[in-house]
Formats: sequence, structure tokens, C-alpha cells
Amino acid sequence: MIHEHAVLNIDVSRAEEFEAAFEEAAPLISASAGFQRMTVSRCVETPGRYLLLVAWESVAAHNEGFRGSPAYQQWRELLHQFYDPMPLVEHYEVVLEADPA
Amino acid sequence: MIHEHAVLNIDVSRAEEFEAAFEEAAPLISASAGFQRMTVSRCVETPGRYLLLVAWESVAAHNEGFRGSPAYQQWRELLHQFYDPMPLVEHYEVVLEADPA
Repeated sequence: MIHEHAVLNIDVSRAEEFEAAFEEAAPLISASAGFQRMTVSRCVETPGRYLLLVAWESVAAHNEGFRGSPAYQQWRELLHQFYDPMPLVEHYEVVLEADPA
Repeated sequence: MIHEHAVLNIDVSRAEEFEAAFEEAAPLISASAGFQRMTVSRCVETPGRYLLLVAWESVAAHNEGFRGSPAYQQWRELLHQFYDPMPLVEHYEVVLEADPA
């Protein structure tokens, strides 16, 4: 399992509009092959900053599957207008997990 | 629930040593009041980059509880030597979740 990771910075005056656009966009990604889970979170310390985490079966499921699909064009149209700057998107694989001792 | 988030950059030649130090440090944080879960992940695209995510009951459980504890001094001694630069640590609260459609 692979986590797509991006810190998203937007104009804070458009935060409500951005969150609504993400709700509209969610079904586009959640129907993609190899999609496992998405969370969008709002930064406590920095207004207008969000964290996007998407669990995928593999990097290819994201980079080739979703990004190569017509649904990704709609995703871009809904969301990319908000980003300033465009985010760095990278992938991570878990090396250590800890539960409460 | 709150997620502590930090992207950690280290000298890639020390990656094995760093991962071992994190395993040693894990029980220090997982015994802290309000700790819920930690994952450490390795970046696929950028060698020497890691993602730290810690779920806490509240920001205070991390900032006041864990960071104010003697265990945090040991945590710092084990881990801070690796960071270049020192990471930005922020907190996020989930605003949207999606499961497979």
C-alpha cells in the first residue's frame, strides 16, 4: 500500500468554496481502480493549508490509472484553480507503525 | 482527533540508522497520554525523506503533554540529530474522508 501525500496551500478567503469543491471531486477519485482511502485535513496553525492523503494499491494506480483517466480531467478542473503554489505530490510507504503502549 | 504532521529530511546515507532510532523511540511516544497512533513512511521519489503522522486526542496532548515530558527529552536525543533541516511540525483536523465508491 502506498500513500499519496500533498500539502495544499490555497487563498484562505476561498476555504469554504475549496472544501465544497473537494466534496464534489471525491467520487471521481474514490471510483478509481486501486483507490483505498482519502482524507483531507485542515491545518490548525496555518490558515488556508490542507493535507491530502490518499491510500492507493500502488504508485501506478495513482500515476497511470487515475491521472490517465477522464475523471482526472474533471478533478483538475474542480481543484487545481485553488492551489497557490501548485503542490508537490509524492508517495510514501510505511516503515513503522505504533499503537498505544 | 488531531494529526501531527511533519516531513522529515535526513542524510540518506544514515537511513538505516535513522529507521532503527525511530523504532527505539516509538515506545516513548506510544506511552504518552492521548497518543492514538503513529506511522513513519519513506518517500518513494525523494531518498532521505520521511513522513511522520501521529494521531493525538488533542493538540495539547502533543504540545503540552508529550513535549513537556521527560520522555520527549529522550525522543529528541534519539531523533533530532538526523534532521536537516529541522522539520516544520503542524497539526491537522480531518474535514473530508472517502472510502472506495
